[in-house]
Amino acid sequence: MTELTNALFRPRAIALIGASADAGKHTALPQRHLLQHGYSGALYPINPRRSEVNGLRAYASVLDVPGPVDHAFVMLPTPQVLPAVADCVKAGVPYVTIMSNGFAEAGTEGQALQTKLLAMAKGSGTRILGPNALGVVDLQAGVALTANEVLSLPELPRGDVGLISQSGSMLGAILSRGAARHAGFSKLVSVGNEADITVAELVQLMVDDPETRVIELFIETVRHPEPLRRAASAAHRANKPILAFRLGRSAVGQQLAVSHTGALAGSGRAASAFLRDIGIAELRNFDALLDAPALFRHSRPSGSRIGIMSTTGGGGALIVDSLGELDIVVSPPPAPMRERLASQGIDVSDAPLVDLTLAGTNAGTYGAVLREFLASDAIDAVVAVVGSSSQFRPDRAVAPILDARGDKPVAVFLTPDANRSQKLLREAGIAVFSQPEACADALRAWTAWRPPRDPEVRPVQVPAGLLRNHAAGTTLSSAHSQAAFAELGISQPREWLLDPDPERWPAGTLASIGYPCVLKIASADIPHKTEVGGVRLGIADAGALRSEAASMFESVRALRPDAAIDGFQVQETIAGLAEVLIGIWRDAAVGPVVSVGMGGILTEIYQDVSLRPAPVGVDEALEMIGEVRAFAQISGYRNRPRGDLNALAEAISRVSALACVDEPRVAEAEINPLAVLAEGRGVRALVGLIVLDA
Amino acid sequence: MTELTNALFRPRAIALIGASADAGKHTALPQRHLLQHGYSGALYPINPRRSEVNGLRAYASVLDVPGPVDHAFVMLPTPQVLPAVADCVKAGVPYVTIMSNGFAEAGTEGQALQTKLLAMAKGSGTRILGPNALGVVDLQAGVALTANEVLSLPELPRGDVGLISQSGSMLGAILSRGAARHAGFSKLVSVGNEADITVAELVQLMVDDPETRVIELFIETVRHPEPLRRAASAAHRANKPILAFRLGRSAVGQQLAVSHTGALAGSGRAASAFLRDIGIAELRNFDALLDAPALFRHSRPSGSRIGIMSTTGGGGALIVDSLGELDIVVSPPPAPMRERLASQGIDVSDAPLVDLTLAGTNAGTYGAVLREFLASDAIDAVVAVVGSSSQFRPDRAVAPILDARGDKPVAVFLTPDANRSQKLLREAGIAVFSQPEACADALRAWTAWRPPRDPEVRPVQVPAGLLRNHAAGTTLSSAHSQAAFAELGISQPREWLLDPDPERWPAGTLASIGYPCVLKIASADIPHKTEVGGVRLGIADAGALRSEAASMFESVRALRPDAAIDGFQVQETIAGLAEVLIGIWRDAAVGPVVSVGMGGILTEIYQDVSLRPAPVGVDEALEMIGEVRAFAQISGYRNRPRGDLNALAEAISRVSALACVDEPRVAEAEINPLAVLAEGRGVRALVGLIVLDA
Repeated sequence: MTELTNALFRPRAIALIGASADAGKHTALPQRHLLQHGYSGALYPINPRRSEVNGLRAYASVLDVPGPVDHAFVMLPTPQVLPAVADCVKAGVPYVTIMSNGFAEAGTEGQALQTKLLAMAKGSGTRILGPNALGVVDLQAGVALTANEVLSLPELPRGDVGLISQSGSMLGAILSRGAARHAGFSKLVSVGNEADITVAELVQLMVDDPETRVIELFIETVRHPEPLRRAASAAHRANKPILAFRLGRSAVGQQLAVSHTGALAGSGRAASAFLRDIGIAELRNFDALLDAPALFRHSRPSGSRIGIMSTTGGGGALIVDSLGELDIVVSPPPAPMRERLASQGIDVSDAPLVDLTLAGTNAGTYGAVLREFLASDAIDAVVAVVGSSSQFRPDRAVAPILDARGDKPVAVFLTPDANRSQKLLREAGIAVFSQPEACADALRAWTAWRPPRDPEVRPVQVPAGLLRNHAAGTTLSSAHSQAAFAELGISQPREWLLDPDPERWPAGTLASIGYPCVLKIASADIPHKTEVGGVRLGIADAGALRSEAASMFESVRALRPDAAIDGFQVQETIAGLAEVLIGIWRDAAVGPVVSVGMGGILTEIYQDVSLRPAPVGVDEALEMIGEVRAFAQISGYRNRPRGDLNALAEAISRVSALACVDEPRVAEAEINPLAVLAEGRGVRALVGLIVLDA
Repeated sequence: MTELTNALFRPRAIALIGASADAGKHTALPQRHLLQHGYSGALYPINPRRSEVNGLRAYASVLDVPGPVDHAFVMLPTPQVLPAVADCVKAGVPYVTIMSNGFAEAGTEGQALQTKLLAMAKGSGTRILGPNALGVVDLQAGVALTANEVLSLPELPRGDVGLISQSGSMLGAILSRGAARHAGFSKLVSVGNEADITVAELVQLMVDDPETRVIELFIETVRHPEPLRRAASAAHRANKPILAFRLGRSAVGQQLAVSHTGALAGSGRAASAFLRDIGIAELRNFDALLDAPALFRHSRPSGSRIGIMSTTGGGGALIVDSLGELDIVVSPPPAPMRERLASQGIDVSDAPLVDLTLAGTNAGTYGAVLREFLASDAIDAVVAVVGSSSQFRPDRAVAPILDARGDKPVAVFLTPDANRSQKLLREAGIAVFSQPEACADALRAWTAWRPPRDPEVRPVQVPAGLLRNHAAGTTLSSAHSQAAFAELGISQPREWLLDPDPERWPAGTLASIGYPCVLKIASADIPHKTEVGGVRLGIADAGALRSEAASMFESVRALRPDAAIDGFQVQETIAGLAEVLIGIWRDAAVGPVVSVGMGGILTEIYQDVSLRPAPVGVDEALEMIGEVRAFAQISGYRNRPRGDLNALAEAISRVSALACVDEPRVAEAEINPLAVLAEGRGVRALVGLIVLDA
């Protein structure tokens, strides 16, 4: 860690601004917590009304203390915060944590106050954590600079997990729950409003921290997507997994997060897609935050084939079911593994669970099966379930887990309350779960985990000046939108413009038209063609085309004698296997995103779309297609004809590139519908729409 | 309890058949557990190789013991079980629990052995629990007749929850987890294979047990649906809620349950629908088994409007999100409640969470908000979230919860590890959760909970002899199937049979035909009408009908001069708003069921169907319609025209009645598609199919 980081987490001198002498008050807690957990640096209570606070000499201002201050902790009422911070800036305090609230999270006035605060610190050597931040804890160094009551606990287990939380109270709750189950942390930071120091910057600090191996985020919103992307990349390069638990997954939760934190109203799905895109694994089960890190500390996922073994049929079935409900593939023991076990006198079936109930709960059998699972190249991770023996006889099935060696992650689920086994496993760095749902969620997150996508790879070059002739705020006409999509390389139905006189139609053109076709009158004077009989569908051949054109000409001329008729527009009929919607927009929180789904009302009802930060390459677009359940229809389901998924992926990628065009900026765009033809026959954009940013 | 029940749970004399003198063996455990937990009756180890077992005189056979035996516990190797049970029958032992395995759960041979065992006991006064049962525990009486290791715990909390488990090991795990969090039980029974004594019978015993107020089931399959329905009805009358946790919810879990227990391969969805139908609330979160009972001990749900309050914004948001993800309605505090609070100086917003972070965590404010929630008639249940104060200061927010009075359930979620508060709340009979997912699941189960449906109410009478002319095993022809559905009162497209000579067609008939219509040639000699041009669609009026009929007659006669032409069949064209599939079949585990969904491939992909035990009444069918997400399309979604949902419900109810016809038995039947017309215009069965049981 740099010296500056040390000033944040391991300050040599701390000023507690607003420290109370009344032990019952929250503002008295940081002093007590620091001393209780062994803080050995200088400590200066700042309280102009006292000369002494709980045994320490107090000062009227941070400017009065006898030495330099590394970290000031501000616990004052809102109106007193700015003057105190001004003093800190003057005193050259490198870090000021502001616990006080009443800033951006409290509405417009608070936002103005926060802006002032930020202006004050800007350009000075003073950095601000918060406001509305509950403080920092460095368990490895014994620094507990926080008013969070959980620090009253006499002992808190140390570990290698660093936690960054947008909720101060939940930071305490997580620490407390961890303590109860031997899950330790290295550093914990409550970031509050992120006025200055951001989640992204703290991730970067933890990447550089040798005592942190896994980084966890408890967040309600993503406030700085691009810095977070860079920090996540650095974490990936340093081989430090990042796990996130995000509030606002449900619609009502999202609504609450916006009102609660002043966060931008981005969509929860966009935020999830963004986290995944930058290599952060998202957990959905709260307890998994404590139990999952050990799973991720192992290698990256090689696949998603999970082997399950158990000393108890019921307990094993509980895990099989929990995984099955999350659509995780449970792999029965592969045949070679079963053969090798049989040669050791251990018979296991090809059921999706190696149930060792009858074999008895002994270390020999349990260890042999676990070793074979770990050695099999058809298995990517193992869940080892241990029943009642884990509570009373860790030597039986827990011991062989402790002894097992291998690169693959092992997730242990203990069916009873088995504190001793839990401690043994945690100390050995093995993932141990007491909730089947947490175990399944952690494995889901692990199998879905992937490296950050390289944001520098722009898969498709958007032609320069594609939208240059359109003013900001414009909604492009259908024709202009379609023209732009055509220039992007997205096919549209073929069209031919024919002379008003059918006698003059070139034979070559007539032969090249694909039938059945659509015939439309071409006239700038007739915007609503159908009203004058100017559209006919399903024309079967060249002869029919001629006669329909002649009769259309007569009827249009009769109805609109004044209109100048340019001729006829002929369009091929598109017989797609499916009609798809590709959309792009700028999410308020995480920026440009692209989505794809089957068009129509059912997609809306089932929310069956795949979503990614834009742009995406073709491979990524194919992955998106695989995530849309309705696309089973055009992916060979029940021997149905396959659609041209490669062409669809190509189109998704091209449209996604448009989301990142900056001059002019595209606010949103969609092709709806895009017809997907049979394999090898491409796609056709039928209707396109582009809206530019105001 | 009757004397017989006492012999099961509180025997005056127990024989331990196969009791080992080796303390390290499982077969030594029941003796130790009984003595450890204070069993004061007579205890007879049965072991022909020893005269004494762990300090007690041993006997060679249950026939040798000096007094009557109430309950024998058999722990012998499989081949020795039958002779031992024969002795018990001879000795007149009323209850024999067989822990030994190798019976129905172990394949065909085991099944044969189990049949023999059952024959042996039949007609005698001896009842059998098991085989493959881990025993019974009566915590109120201190009887621990089981080899489950968890009974080694020195103290186990007593409570009023009775647990019946198909998994012996999970019974122990649940007991162990309960002990760690002060969740007590009255009686626990491991039922094993249910060869004789069934889950249903044990439910009935617990209904009669004054010490049990809530009954819980941990099950993998429903083996005896009708007895369970009767027992559940009795429980409902006695005001004792039944909660179930069922393994086999996922496809892979279902597959495992079948192989693991020898259960029938019924569908998981059918089992869930069945449990709900008979008034059993199904939990999906494992920990909810321990935490949910207190919620159900209160009144039945009056609605599903959940109010949420919290001392911590993050912790409250966690609950809001968890409920939102299960589509549970979170109700903001209603206006009158906010006004009453404002008059007490407490300002709360209309956000879906009453966040008291800023109000400070004090008993006065917290209690006032809770009281107002409990008093509001716009709220059905309350979640009270307590943050760090629950760990160190139960007097702040936990105390007012303990003091609160009202009929509505309160679910408490504690964000930190807060053992003391948990104990206080449990002892007060208040539902307390430490997992947000468990809390949300329990509330989901509670709001979805309903009284058992009265199985005697047969909503529709199936006409006598509807299918009598068809032999068993028959698949009825389309025409016969449609005729049967018509007799059941399900409308079909109107049809008219017209003379071969259009000149003879009655003007009245022509006027009554709805146009556009379909015209078909009517001839018993022409099974494939389309091949000879014998079908024409979309005929617009009477004139067109005459001319099409004349031309069809000519063309058919030209192609099939030998065929006798009876005339023409005219059918109205059905323009439905949706095409629906109604199906019935007999689930292997739970019997007749009915399902409804939108027809077509997407329904299959999304598994978007509603399912119920058959028969259902019209109200129930309307509820089913509400559960099918795709039906939003015909329920007014985005101002689309509404379909005739009442007629659809009527049709579902009528078809469902067919599932219960016994002579001949219907194996399966479906209408696919059933066209749903606009509101008030009914439904039409377009294609029907009925298959009789072989």
